[in-house]
Amino acid sequence: MAATRDQYLEEHNGRFVEALQEWLAIPSISTLSEHQEDVYMAAEWVRNRLVYMGFPEVRTIPTNGHPLVYGEWLVDPHQPTLLFYGHYDVQPVDPVDEWQSPPFEPVIRDGNIYCRGASDDKAQILLVLAALESWIRVDGRLPVNIKILLEGEEEAGGAGVDRFVSKNAELLEADAVLICDTHMVDISQPSIINGLRGILYTEIIVSGAKTDLHSGSYGGVAPNPLHALCVLLSRLKGEDGVIHIPELHEALPEVSAAEKEFWREDPLRIEDALCREMGVEQLVGENDFPPLERLGVRPTLEVHGIRGGFTGQGAKTVIPAEAVAKVSLRLPANLVPDEVFGWLKKAVKQHIPAGYAVRLVNLHGGRGVAVNPDNSYIQAATAALSAIYGREPVFMREGGSIPIAALFDAVLGAPVVLMGFGLPDDGAHAPNEKFSLEQFHLGMRTVAEFLGKIAR
Amino acid sequence: MAATRDQYLEEHNGRFVEALQEWLAIPSISTLSEHQEDVYMAAEWVRNRLVYMGFPEVRTIPTNGHPLVYGEWLVDPHQPTLLFYGHYDVQPVDPVDEWQSPPFEPVIRDGNIYCRGASDDKAQILLVLAALESWIRVDGRLPVNIKILLEGEEEAGGAGVDRFVSKNAELLEADAVLICDTHMVDISQPSIINGLRGILYTEIIVSGAKTDLHSGSYGGVAPNPLHALCVLLSRLKGEDGVIHIPELHEALPEVSAAEKEFWREDPLRIEDALCREMGVEQLVGENDFPPLERLGVRPTLEVHGIRGGFTGQGAKTVIPAEAVAKVSLRLPANLVPDEVFGWLKKAVKQHIPAGYAVRLVNLHGGRGVAVNPDNSYIQAATAALSAIYGREPVFMREGGSIPIAALFDAVLGAPVVLMGFGLPDDGAHAPNEKFSLEQFHLGMRTVAEFLGKIAR
Repeated sequence: MAATRDQYLEEHNGRFVEALQEWLAIPSISTLSEHQEDVYMAAEWVRNRLVYMGFPEVRTIPTNGHPLVYGEWLVDPHQPTLLFYGHYDVQPVDPVDEWQSPPFEPVIRDGNIYCRGASDDKAQILLVLAALESWIRVDGRLPVNIKILLEGEEEAGGAGVDRFVSKNAELLEADAVLICDTHMVDISQPSIINGLRGILYTEIIVSGAKTDLHSGSYGGVAPNPLHALCVLLSRLKGEDGVIHIPELHEALPEVSAAEKEFWREDPLRIEDALCREMGVEQLVGENDFPPLERLGVRPTLEVHGIRGGFTGQGAKTVIPAEAVAKVSLRLPANLVPDEVFGWLKKAVKQHIPAGYAVRLVNLHGGRGVAVNPDNSYIQAATAALSAIYGREPVFMREGGSIPIAALFDAVLGAPVVLMGFGLPDDGAHAPNEKFSLEQFHLGMRTVAEFLGKIAR
Repeated sequence: MAATRDQYLEEHNGRFVEALQEWLAIPSISTLSEHQEDVYMAAEWVRNRLVYMGFPEVRTIPTNGHPLVYGEWLVDPHQPTLLFYGHYDVQPVDPVDEWQSPPFEPVIRDGNIYCRGASDDKAQILLVLAALESWIRVDGRLPVNIKILLEGEEEAGGAGVDRFVSKNAELLEADAVLICDTHMVDISQPSIINGLRGILYTEIIVSGAKTDLHSGSYGGVAPNPLHALCVLLSRLKGEDGVIHIPELHEALPEVSAAEKEFWREDPLRIEDALCREMGVEQLVGENDFPPLERLGVRPTLEVHGIRGGFTGQGAKTVIPAEAVAKVSLRLPANLVPDEVFGWLKKAVKQHIPAGYAVRLVNLHGGRGVAVNPDNSYIQAATAALSAIYGREPVFMREGGSIPIAALFDAVLGAPVVLMGFGLPDDGAHAPNEKFSLEQFHLGMRTVAEFLGKIAR
């Protein structure tokens, strides 16, 4: 029997890695309907894990989409209640030929485990479960009341969990929320996220002629929706990174002078790290703002893909009848995605070249979040990270969106602790996604420490 | 026994339609390697057809790509020799879900035969073979010497036939060349093509970061090659249709005042027909030039597809490492595609936003052709069309490219008769391609008539 939780986590580390490999091998891609069964199997897997750990209440909760997994272990009404949230679904894997090993065959290379979903978010869920297990097995009980809510639609907009959280404030009532779905600055520099951008994800559909046309017979007089989309997208955002939606700029939030200075000075040399990670010599975007500000609170507009016409091997001289762009905006926390959708729509109608019809689809949106660091749970996280990493964490904005964080903030009124253990080069959403096994282990120890610190 | 060729063509029309259906059912898509066997089968099919018709010499000629089919029947050294050219390969079929019936299951609806390759170019080859057959079976011999050259790479750049024609001027020596791969203005208005644009087909490949990136973690500082392509393409050609390649404009040819007037006056109301065919209320493109001039001799730049990132179902927040646009230019007859490629390359390097690498691939090119109507073969075609359709043909520019026509012109020094029987709404290269069965029959009769008229 291990005498301390650290010993327990050390002795059982291999078993946790094996469990992670087993879970990662389930290709739970939530946006592709052919993987519906896999997503369900991934939910079943983690449900069984909670049962095995001894959770007295474990439920699979159906939604219109993929199910939620809920676990609850209330140990003492005098102790605080921590709600832990994570997601067991993963991103699609294309371009699949850029993976060095098959995306759903987890392999360990150079101290990292490579698999789609490794960093985002399966390893980060399992390290929390390992931390809980160390308390259960070593101390015989959890130090605080625990609620666990795991969803399977985070990469698909999370409509199911949004509805569930909004309708079940009482069930989910908690003193704080823990989310481990972000990354640290560096393996030697722990960090806590004090802000997340929101997101609006849309499709812009441009139509020209009633059918596809031959560019020989019609080129010169025919509308080409692909070219119209190019003109439109270059007008919505220029080469200088400036977004041409006036309402957006009027609605941007004030930021503190201290944070502005941190961004300007960039003491952690994050700009250099970004260039290294991306393999580029210069950053692209709004030159008038420091890179950290652009990543943290500036709105962005990105095109993720353009469909229409012919992109196969060889030469097809088609002018397509329709072209579709997938476009998302990242938004500072105060902006409401549905409202931004209206502004985008207005700008699109204004900038579309003459002779085309255009319509927009609001695929999904989620608000950002701004964390007030002045509370005991953030302080406990700070202390736990300092104890395990031997270095004070820094507070960072995260450019990514975790819409559920904003919802917890709004519905539960509880502080959200965003303490992630990913690393910047994990490649979440990209080929060859990985998670550091050292971070897996340090993460378990940190969360175990954090649980002790929030107990009264 | 039929007493006249017209009677023969009437009596055997059903058999010709059946043969067409059989040939169309072979999915000879030359640009897709998985159809290599099908392309070969389509070549075998037409080779066997020539043997069945009685051609004394029939050969399949291998190339680096798909084979050529060559047939020769020299009946009388005192008669002229006509070289007939066609292509037995077809375009890809995507978007396949827009076809009302499967693209390679030929069906007859409302007097049209629907199948990929119907108009471009299988029916137009078979109607010529039917015309030849009517001479062979009714008159017992061909009225002139016939050479037939059919290729399987027209939709893929035709590199094999180009090399073959360049090296075999003696074998192919002819007094005139007949090509039936264009369309008439209207079923009641026959036309002969007096000019074809050339083509340059390229890929523009833009690179940003070394790997795909998450738009949450990197959006605001990351290069987005999809957006850079949009900016680039909107700079290469504006909303006004003007192409920003200065060398191109300096090299444009002079056109005759008579042709300019025909374009300006548009006596056949082709502008209205174009709007109807495309289902649009206004034409798009260079307003300073009449639509017929834009279709006939103005250079065009079209984007046919953009690859990169994610275009599937749902939402993936990826910023791709690379994006590729398929871009072609249509060129007036005097321009050399390889030279234009150099100008395009220069313009691309100049207009690509900062922070990106860009490279171009010259997929294929072919020069246009300008026909001098003042020769006896064009006059014979005019007389044949007038006799069968009861109306004088008009001379028209065709926006599409038949690079081989320019090569015949250059290598053989023989006049090229571009007498096509397609109709403007055939949908060559689009879903639901069709060919009119009435045109199939009128075409046979016209070509049989033409053969008689060119005999001495």
